[in-house]
Amino acid sequence: MSCCHHSGLDGDTAFTVDASRVTFGRGCLAEVGDRAAALGIHRVALFSDPTVATLEIFDTVQRSLREAGVEVVSYPDARVEPTDESFKQAAAFATDVNPDGYVSVGGGSVIDTAKAANLYASHPADFLEYVNAPVGAGAAVPGPLRPHIACPTTSGTGSEVTGIAIFDLLAMAAKTGIASPALRPTEALVDPDCTDTLPASVVACSGLDVLSHALESYTARPYRRRAVTGRPSRRPMSQGANPWSDLGSLEALRLLGRYLERAVTDAADREAREQVMWAATLAGIAFGNAGVHIPHAMAYAVAGQVHDFHPPEYPGDEPMVPHGMSVVLNAPAAFRLTAPTDPVRHLEAARQLGADAADAGPEDAGTVLAEHLIRIMRAVGMPNGLAGVGYSETDAAALADGAWPQQRLLNNAPIDVDKAWLADTFRRALNYW
Amino acid sequence: MSCCHHSGLDGDTAFTVDASRVTFGRGCLAEVGDRAAALGIHRVALFSDPTVATLEIFDTVQRSLREAGVEVVSYPDARVEPTDESFKQAAAFATDVNPDGYVSVGGGSVIDTAKAANLYASHPADFLEYVNAPVGAGAAVPGPLRPHIACPTTSGTGSEVTGIAIFDLLAMAAKTGIASPALRPTEALVDPDCTDTLPASVVACSGLDVLSHALESYTARPYRRRAVTGRPSRRPMSQGANPWSDLGSLEALRLLGRYLERAVTDAADREAREQVMWAATLAGIAFGNAGVHIPHAMAYAVAGQVHDFHPPEYPGDEPMVPHGMSVVLNAPAAFRLTAPTDPVRHLEAARQLGADAADAGPEDAGTVLAEHLIRIMRAVGMPNGLAGVGYSETDAAALADGAWPQQRLLNNAPIDVDKAWLADTFRRALNYW
Repeated sequence: MSCCHHSGLDGDTAFTVDASRVTFGRGCLAEVGDRAAALGIHRVALFSDPTVATLEIFDTVQRSLREAGVEVVSYPDARVEPTDESFKQAAAFATDVNPDGYVSVGGGSVIDTAKAANLYASHPADFLEYVNAPVGAGAAVPGPLRPHIACPTTSGTGSEVTGIAIFDLLAMAAKTGIASPALRPTEALVDPDCTDTLPASVVACSGLDVLSHALESYTARPYRRRAVTGRPSRRPMSQGANPWSDLGSLEALRLLGRYLERAVTDAADREAREQVMWAATLAGIAFGNAGVHIPHAMAYAVAGQVHDFHPPEYPGDEPMVPHGMSVVLNAPAAFRLTAPTDPVRHLEAARQLGADAADAGPEDAGTVLAEHLIRIMRAVGMPNGLAGVGYSETDAAALADGAWPQQRLLNNAPIDVDKAWLADTFRRALNYW
Repeated sequence: MSCCHHSGLDGDTAFTVDASRVTFGRGCLAEVGDRAAALGIHRVALFSDPTVATLEIFDTVQRSLREAGVEVVSYPDARVEPTDESFKQAAAFATDVNPDGYVSVGGGSVIDTAKAANLYASHPADFLEYVNAPVGAGAAVPGPLRPHIACPTTSGTGSEVTGIAIFDLLAMAAKTGIASPALRPTEALVDPDCTDTLPASVVACSGLDVLSHALESYTARPYRRRAVTGRPSRRPMSQGANPWSDLGSLEALRLLGRYLERAVTDAADREAREQVMWAATLAGIAFGNAGVHIPHAMAYAVAGQVHDFHPPEYPGDEPMVPHGMSVVLNAPAAFRLTAPTDPVRHLEAARQLGADAADAGPEDAGTVLAEHLIRIMRAVGMPNGLAGVGYSETDAAALADGAWPQQRLLNNAPIDVDKAWLADTFRRALNYW
């Protein structure tokens, strides 16, 4: 009935976009107490991780909440790179505390952990119930969650404005996630002061994650080519590129082209770090309404199958590839191959990033974009392809197997891919210079 | 306490943006039933006006709601150019029916009427309680309203994505309004099919309203120059130009420069009408988070003090100046005078609208923008200034008195204005060619 207007067409004829309430500006973390009170929160579960919980910004948040008369119950134990186990522990905490609202202060891991805790405390279910199919049952979240104010401390995740929570499913040694508009935080407080003390490598990795959010959203399969299934009110967040996401994606690319290298190389360049954080917000809004595709799907395998790489300036010593790095290492190889689907868009993206594409024709789109990405990666200190984080030819098939379950993302790509295509693209991503 | 970060600064250091969930695309009105059901609505108050209620799109909405199992109680009596009396009648209807959700199908008048009915039925109060100061008490809305799905049938108002409801206060013979984030509809269903049958003059007037939404948002006093008063969670929607509103404003101007004349002159140009409706949505999101200023403040007086003008192709025969016309007639005179505050922005706006500003310097900004606006106004059949709708020199002082109460808008202007300035600008707006 309500789908009758789709008849005769292969793809969707409309798109649906959502965004959190966003407050952006230096010092705005101090608003959190007033904002929590305005949302009717009396008892808040405050999520962070062991590093963030020692920072001055964390004190600022606690003080603001308490001065506004909000009771604070702190959970400083969110795991960096969360797992199903760490999500379950956070959910058990939330169920026990029974707060009437959530505040998360941290990177994507912290914000995602608060989303999961809020979900399972609000709508208890078997853990796999809400997890994306085919890994989980992919069930719809049955109703709204408690209000959640997300305060990102890196300029990368975009999690503060999306309805996505990512984790490692330990039993499968694979990253997967939960995706529902219900998970989107009620408000985001985006305070560039948080980024002043970030090490250069963290700014580089998170900034390249942002770059790929914008680039993947802009080049995703257009929304009109998404086959319509199910109720219009359940249109997925990975609905493909649309005029709304295009606007945020292009502006994010323009800002990153202008400010990312400055933000990485000079921690004192407050303008650059502020603009990169605004780019992260815009790209988050864009990919939360369009979806990412191949580089992110491949990244899940790159992060999950890491051998013994550990990035400089990152805490701890366990093997890990930071999320943004695991994404961008695939990007030049992937975009070379997707460019023929829409050379105009791939060239426009390169131009926004600052590439000189004045004389480029459609057949050059993949090369122009890939070479410009490689130039940026070198300028901000990325390893030379997947070989730079310890992978070799012999890993390609296993990496393809690891990326293959990311069907939600792969279906959002502008081309049809199979495991052989993925293995070939992993090989092409081994060395870039 | 939570404002401490403002100390030592004259202006705000952050901005807050909000947007409704928006679905855009041809045929999407047929989603309304599924969406209402997904919001948990069982019994809906369906608002429209006597003209819209006879259209096929209105049947589409009713059928979709009923097929989704939603009980429909119809209120087809929203007044075009609502008054305090018509708002009160609508509120009495809503209080009596006690629906658990609202759907509005129509132009800004219908959507605004549904907002007011929802407000007073949800939070009963003396009528002037929530009305903008200084006319009303300007009290904060104490809590959320019932869900509201707004379906605009013109490409002009932007009301579907703003928290503003405008009406004539009969006792003062002046337009005023209610402004609160709580009034913002839960969802907007923006279906360009609605505009296929609009007469050219309606597309012109509503399109020029959109143009001025975008232009005023882009040139409004920057948010950093807004003096901070009160709680951060009560930051006003008229907070001034900010990076978020700039993005929507510039894209709306670009689209209008490219498509508005085509949309007016050829009803069969579906691409143009679709793009103008998307521009209306973007400009609505922009001005809902930045605010308009002088041309809209002046428009309230132009519409309110009309002598005997009635526009061609508009129903009825009572004197009236359509809202978009009442706005744009002031625009060239106003922007000539605001241009020196930020010539770069005024030139950039002109460029996005299609002006040739290659050789223009800062001192030319006002002239370039005003002359390009006049060119567009002539091309789409606007009257030649305020004289074209029946005003003369002798009306200037009374028009200035009529615009003066719009302090919410005038305070959002990039320059300080007084009554003498307004009277002078009304005189400059009398004849343009």
